[in-house]
Amino acid sequence: MTKFAIGLDFGTESGRALVVNVATGEVVGSAAHRYADGVIDAHLPGAATKLEPDTALQNPNDYIETLKHAIPEALQQGGIRADDVIGIGVDFTACTILPTRADGTSLCLLNEFRSNPHAWVKLWKHHAAQPEADRINALARERNEPWLAVYGGIVSSEWYHSKTLEILNDAPEIFDAADKIVEAGDWIVWQMTGALKRNTCAAGYKGLWIKGAGFPSNDFLGALDPRLDRLNETKLAGEIVAPGTRVGLLTERAAQWMNLKPGIAAAAATIDAHAAVPGAGVTEPGRMVLILGTSTCHMILDRAQHLVPGISGVVADGILPGLFGYEAGQVGVGDIFEWFIEHNLAALYNHRAKERGISAYQLLEEEAAQLKPGESGLLALDWWNGCRTPLVDANLSGVILGMTLSTRAPEVYRALIEATAFGTQIIVETFEQNGVKVDELVACGGLAERNKLLLQIYADVTGREFVEAGSGHTSALGAAMLGAYAAGRAAGGFDSLTDAASRMFPAQRVAYKPNTQNHATYQKLFAEYRQLHAYFGRGANDVMKRLREIRRQV
Amino acid sequence: MTKFAIGLDFGTESGRALVVNVATGEVVGSAAHRYADGVIDAHLPGAATKLEPDTALQNPNDYIETLKHAIPEALQQGGIRADDVIGIGVDFTACTILPTRADGTSLCLLNEFRSNPHAWVKLWKHHAAQPEADRINALARERNEPWLAVYGGIVSSEWYHSKTLEILNDAPEIFDAADKIVEAGDWIVWQMTGALKRNTCAAGYKGLWIKGAGFPSNDFLGALDPRLDRLNETKLAGEIVAPGTRVGLLTERAAQWMNLKPGIAAAAATIDAHAAVPGAGVTEPGRMVLILGTSTCHMILDRAQHLVPGISGVVADGILPGLFGYEAGQVGVGDIFEWFIEHNLAALYNHRAKERGISAYQLLEEEAAQLKPGESGLLALDWWNGCRTPLVDANLSGVILGMTLSTRAPEVYRALIEATAFGTQIIVETFEQNGVKVDELVACGGLAERNKLLLQIYADVTGREFVEAGSGHTSALGAAMLGAYAAGRAAGGFDSLTDAASRMFPAQRVAYKPNTQNHATYQKLFAEYRQLHAYFGRGANDVMKRLREIRRQV
Repeated sequence: MTKFAIGLDFGTESGRALVVNVATGEVVGSAAHRYADGVIDAHLPGAATKLEPDTALQNPNDYIETLKHAIPEALQQGGIRADDVIGIGVDFTACTILPTRADGTSLCLLNEFRSNPHAWVKLWKHHAAQPEADRINALARERNEPWLAVYGGIVSSEWYHSKTLEILNDAPEIFDAADKIVEAGDWIVWQMTGALKRNTCAAGYKGLWIKGAGFPSNDFLGALDPRLDRLNETKLAGEIVAPGTRVGLLTERAAQWMNLKPGIAAAAATIDAHAAVPGAGVTEPGRMVLILGTSTCHMILDRAQHLVPGISGVVADGILPGLFGYEAGQVGVGDIFEWFIEHNLAALYNHRAKERGISAYQLLEEEAAQLKPGESGLLALDWWNGCRTPLVDANLSGVILGMTLSTRAPEVYRALIEATAFGTQIIVETFEQNGVKVDELVACGGLAERNKLLLQIYADVTGREFVEAGSGHTSALGAAMLGAYAAGRAAGGFDSLTDAASRMFPAQRVAYKPNTQNHATYQKLFAEYRQLHAYFGRGANDVMKRLREIRRQV
Repeated sequence: MTKFAIGLDFGTESGRALVVNVATGEVVGSAAHRYADGVIDAHLPGAATKLEPDTALQNPNDYIETLKHAIPEALQQGGIRADDVIGIGVDFTACTILPTRADGTSLCLLNEFRSNPHAWVKLWKHHAAQPEADRINALARERNEPWLAVYGGIVSSEWYHSKTLEILNDAPEIFDAADKIVEAGDWIVWQMTGALKRNTCAAGYKGLWIKGAGFPSNDFLGALDPRLDRLNETKLAGEIVAPGTRVGLLTERAAQWMNLKPGIAAAAATIDAHAAVPGAGVTEPGRMVLILGTSTCHMILDRAQHLVPGISGVVADGILPGLFGYEAGQVGVGDIFEWFIEHNLAALYNHRAKERGISAYQLLEEEAAQLKPGESGLLALDWWNGCRTPLVDANLSGVILGMTLSTRAPEVYRALIEATAFGTQIIVETFEQNGVKVDELVACGGLAERNKLLLQIYADVTGREFVEAGSGHTSALGAAMLGAYAAGRAAGGFDSLTDAASRMFPAQRVAYKPNTQNHATYQKLFAEYRQLHAYFGRGANDVMKRLREIRRQV
């Protein structure tokens, strides 16, 4: 009897449901639901008051509506009967959190709090908590908190404690009224099952939770603000379980929303990016998953914990149970290419692309692909958005070097792709120098699907095979694997995520193998990149920071 | 009785005659003649054989035709009688040379040599003599020739000895048939007067002639090639006189060509760029003349000879009699802006410019002028074409640093202008550190007329007044001053070039004064520029050269 698992992928603008055959990985249904209120950054729904800058909120009802629409539609699309669905897995943006009552009711849905922005879901890209992040970083450094090094030495304004402290500072009445402050991924599973468990992935990467040590101590929290000193026992309390762990079974109410049967297993959630690791068929050390988009997220598994400078975090059981999950990042990749094409591409290329009925991207990719490595004489540093791993420095900036009067757009475009490849190679080296082996790269994300030249350049630069993950919805597929694992073998699922991934991952499409000659040239170019990376990034010449300082002064 | 002098400006594509009132400097007539054969770089006139790459020749008849057309037309335009013209001065591109018979007949006009490219005028931008220049440089370094330092340590493929050696190597029959090999500027004066004299300007800047020491020794020339060992006494013989010195009087034949009276004084020629110094009213030390175009030529006078690194040359009496004339240069200025606008400007700017009925240049200038110094956070090195003064290194290349996703075209455009201003400031400092004072800048050339933002930025960067020279034809006006000086006071002219310039230079139009606050910011930015200039230009990191080497290899 064929069984199916559902993967739910909650993104920034919409949610998607994937119905997947657990025996073959075949996607038999796929449907998206666009959030009615989307990203709330101008004013609250139904209100006129303008929100503060850097605010980014969501309406939790939109998540429930996704359950109600996307799942029935995906089931119908595949002609799948509710009886044949054995489990549900969820991946979610993070850190995306909301304050709730003890029963899970979101405060923003209560009349008394509806008009307070802090009662709403704070989306991952809500950036108003920077002062709170600064305070946390200063205090952690001052107290020499042991967890700081695990997070590359810096806590982001996007993370749990920054956002929670912001609620406390700006809306103490909301803080007081909140029995829980939870990740939206955990909240939606709570809504499905009636049980609140917190997933190690979001807790670990965004909540400063470390296996064995737990969350930051009451002592630290009390020093941050006396009113936080029992956070761990109250608003942040709850069992911590690895993604895919069965949290509970679908309640009658939730089953009705989704046209499913109650009693189906629901898995502990995971972060959307991290779901892509099993979703890309990766369940073992040595294979680095790159989610290539406007920025790039690098994830890799290892059996041991190593301290790697400038990574976003290393979390035990954070991606897959039994392994340490490492996350690193490049903060500017696809958005640099977009900047180039939107603001620096001469009209003649747009004309040529239009004449041929292709996009400017396609034209540039075609022409850049004609060039050999080193042929342009250009070298760039990919710091348009600063540098995350390994330098953790937002004040660095982009460089292009080697221009002559003969320099043309396809050369610059290729140099920018190469710069991001060198940035990845720096990350690969940083991992390897600190004990985490990287044998192969696995590509997913929109950029990987669109830009084949990029994949070949990354293979040539790193000297490693770059495998394109097969699915168009890697994260949602990973979430479905979590659902199949939560269901367990007895119900027709799997007893391990490794088994789920090995059965449910489709045959890989394309492996980009490094070209020996290109790799040799890129090694020379990378030596130049590394030297400039160190010169401008490690204090020999802080010109980029001084330019920012001059800019602030004028 | 009002008297007039004629200035003849022989450019690359055409020649121009200016008729100037010697008492007021008023231009009463101006006419150009386009060379029929222009720049000969594909095949010889009337022949089908394709010329070698880097060849750039001219037809000397085009110069005679300029006399025949431009002067009568300019005279007619002003309603000037031949009787009232007292002198003629000439400026010419250089090094532009031709082989002739002893009577001045150009070899290319003789049937037996007509089909040989080496019998024709080699235009300044004929670049086929690079192997010869390499050989001259190697030998001069090997022999430690004292003159090499005067030319910044390097002899150009454009110069007299490189081109002459090329004739010898590639067409020994032409070399043998040539009684003289002369600068076209000296040749045209020879055609007018029947007398051959060589001007110190072309001899000094392009012919390695040094006052007191003369041309490179027979010993050196003989070592270069035994057949050159009597070059100085034969093909290069002739009295050397300062520009403006009377060479002779118009012959009957020449007067007929021009609708003038025989017996009028003709001045020794000068190089076109150098004519702009008196043409801009500059006859004293301390005022640096910048001819701003695709590249920039910097000229300054001083009472003493100093060795300044990386200049194009220092020549006694080279620009004005009695003073040392210094020439320095930036090899990429206007052409960098053109590159930017042609190959890097997004379509949206072209649309906006079109909508407003202005050029993309104007739009960018307008928007860049809104920015404060330092506001863009950008810094560039203006080495798209290499660096002439002070590094004399064609293998350097351009850099833009400080880019973010918010960087926009007007910011980059302004950063490029600023980079060329910093490049000029480096030259100013190089002069001052080596004993040549620079109090003020004087602007001429096409870019100075078109780009007012550039003039203000240069004033703000250098902290010096930047005066725009009044005339649209600065070099031709300077040539007319030479003519008035050659005529002498008795004939209604002047007994010194200083007198000529002070009477014939029109009231200056605009002085751009440095803004104190902008200068303070630019001093900070210039400190950053200087550090990068040294880092990439003086051997700390030769990445630009290695990138070129890698490029050559692939």
